[in-house]
Amino acid sequence: MLTFIGLGLFDKTDVSEKGLSRIRNADRVYLECYTSRLMGATREGLEQYYRRPVTPLYRSDVEQDPDAMLEEATTKDVVFLCAGDPMVSTTHADLRIRAASRGIPTAIIHAASIASAVCGLSGLQNYRFGKSCSLPFPQKNWFPTTPLDVILANLSQRLHTLVYLDIQDDRYMTVPEAVALLEEMAAARKEKIPLYVGIARAGSDEPVVRAGPGELVRACDFGPPLHILIVPAELHDMEREYLEMFAGL
Amino acid sequence: MLTFIGLGLFDKTDVSEKGLSRIRNADRVYLECYTSRLMGATREGLEQYYRRPVTPLYRSDVEQDPDAMLEEATTKDVVFLCAGDPMVSTTHADLRIRAASRGIPTAIIHAASIASAVCGLSGLQNYRFGKSCSLPFPQKNWFPTTPLDVILANLSQRLHTLVYLDIQDDRYMTVPEAVALLEEMAAARKEKIPLYVGIARAGSDEPVVRAGPGELVRACDFGPPLHILIVPAELHDMEREYLEMFAGL
Repeated sequence: MLTFIGLGLFDKTDVSEKGLSRIRNADRVYLECYTSRLMGATREGLEQYYRRPVTPLYRSDVEQDPDAMLEEATTKDVVFLCAGDPMVSTTHADLRIRAASRGIPTAIIHAASIASAVCGLSGLQNYRFGKSCSLPFPQKNWFPTTPLDVILANLSQRLHTLVYLDIQDDRYMTVPEAVALLEEMAAARKEKIPLYVGIARAGSDEPVVRAGPGELVRACDFGPPLHILIVPAELHDMEREYLEMFAGL
Repeated sequence: MLTFIGLGLFDKTDVSEKGLSRIRNADRVYLECYTSRLMGATREGLEQYYRRPVTPLYRSDVEQDPDAMLEEATTKDVVFLCAGDPMVSTTHADLRIRAASRGIPTAIIHAASIASAVCGLSGLQNYRFGKSCSLPFPQKNWFPTTPLDVILANLSQRLHTLVYLDIQDDRYMTVPEAVALLEEMAAARKEKIPLYVGIARAGSDEPVVRAGPGELVRACDFGPPLHILIVPAELHDMEREYLEMFAGL
């Protein structure tokens, strides 16, 4: 059996009771380390908490050589851990399909995802979010403006946009970096993004949430990662009141 | 202090370790009973599990008479429990604003939300969802077609739509009922919704996920609530493969 278990947002205690009990009873515990990170936990800390060895998995392990893990799952109880809620990433969906193709039973144990946590942290209403987008680090000769297209299309429909910020190895895009990139893209197109909401360390005891125009949010110190960004559309009254109260608008 | 704690999707073990420990140490435990339900749990079962009395809250308690609860939270450690992830509902945001206006410290402990769980259950990619909508039970002289407008706008942008199904007291809209309503709305406008994905009991050990055209999904028995519906846009290859494997497409 192969069970995908979400670990939630920040530290070892964000896993559900259901998930923790399955991990502690598993024959083998794998931890997916490449699509996201549990910033408030170390692998050693997780091993102590689970009372089980935890084997890290990198992209090539899952996308190119999953055979050994799948072989194990034909006879043993294998759990596949990841930050957030499983399957938000394509690579997990692919692995579940491969497992099922071999006749391996699969299951998912859900956990908190940043996709819904941002609603609570910002007060922006879930049903007002349009399509989300990802903002990659700019590379030489490659500066995609797709994120801006998504944001502008959402704004024109009065919808908020959740902007996932790039992670490259140990480099995490910050909210100020992201705002600077989007402001540059917008300026090049003579567009103006009126408001941003930056969020850092969702799920921790000390999340930072700051709302304001680009120049203000760029100047904030959000502290350590992970960061995420929202570009809100025109605010409803209660959304505005919430941001004034909890995000310094 | 007032802490909003999400209970996750289905039963008492879907709460996070962090949430459970705060509940067990709280002075007072309230359970919000009107925006959603934890179908795999009873209040008595939760009380045993938490080793704490649990006071149910109905809409009027929270929206009209929250003063007693807020007064308590000025001196005691009060927790406010709800199914799913807190704050996805406007009424929670309002309560948090009221608490903060009185100078009461507040916090949120996140949990799994149906909004991200549907991605894992259906294999439909998170970033391809547009604005979501709610489908109410039809009432005499009132048959809103807003949900259809949202679905058609999303389809025209090749985006999936998550359709929240109505809960009225102890009446839960089922996937077949929802599909029948949408097919009726679409027919009246000479539109055709090509595909549906119905999901029942997300987060339980036996979720049901079925994909297909309206006439097929309407004929499926999804079993007990809660149900939720997705109207997918044109599928990517892996989404199609996932639905074929796990949803009988």
